[in-house]
Amino acid sequence: MSDLKHRILYSKPISGLISFLFAHADKLVPVSRLRESPNWLAFSHPNPAYPVHILIVPKRKITNWMELPVTDPVLHTEFVAITQSMIKDFCLEAAGYRLIVNGGINQDFPHLHIHLVAGEAN
Amino acid sequence: MSDLKHRILYSKPISGLISFLFAHADKLVPVSRLRESPNWLAFSHPNPAYPVHILIVPKRKITNWMELPVTDPVLHTEFVAITQSMIKDFCLEAAGYRLIVNGGINQDFPHLHIHLVAGEAN
Repeated sequence: MSDLKHRILYSKPISGLISFLFAHADKLVPVSRLRESPNWLAFSHPNPAYPVHILIVPKRKITNWMELPVTDPVLHTEFVAITQSMIKDFCLEAAGYRLIVNGGINQDFPHLHIHLVAGEAN
Repeated sequence: MSDLKHRILYSKPISGLISFLFAHADKLVPVSRLRESPNWLAFSHPNPAYPVHILIVPKRKITNWMELPVTDPVLHTEFVAITQSMIKDFCLEAAGYRLIVNGGINQDFPHLHIHLVAGEAN
């Protein structure tokens, strides 16, 4: 990601808007919904890099892995339940799957997102 | 991983022994310990594929991500706390980090393990 794109995406107005959308207006996010829980939304990646490429994002404002609260256990158990449900229903064990969190300078979007991918990278 | 190696590692005696070691005799596992909690152990990968390559494993018998119980929230909050502590103390945000779970046919060892890596792959 270019330094300019990074600075724009991570600027307060833009990152605030992204978090606001997921937290208060997730119905407006134009994505193909695969799973939803009180705290999480899972959808197909709009630019998939794998045959199966799913993003799982918190609905509340959590910018990155370091901001994930450890005081809200339901947040975590819901996440595990959602991933297990998709891995089972989409038969991802046979294809081989990976769960990936990119953090620090590897993160390209200022809202926590976990990738669930399967198959060979495109 | 060869089919033979996979069949040996995933055979009941071997996978049972591996889980037994982590659950009942983790002090005997010859690794460089980085973090420990009641439920988890984090140590440097014995054959690192990245400049920073840490494995985080549950002490109890959990073979893979699909067997991670959703009924034990402390298990999950401890995991998040351990990863956040290492990312902070080892300054991994500046280097860029990734958390990775390999599952299904991508998993090479019959005990759940999460990779925390940073830097370019060797």
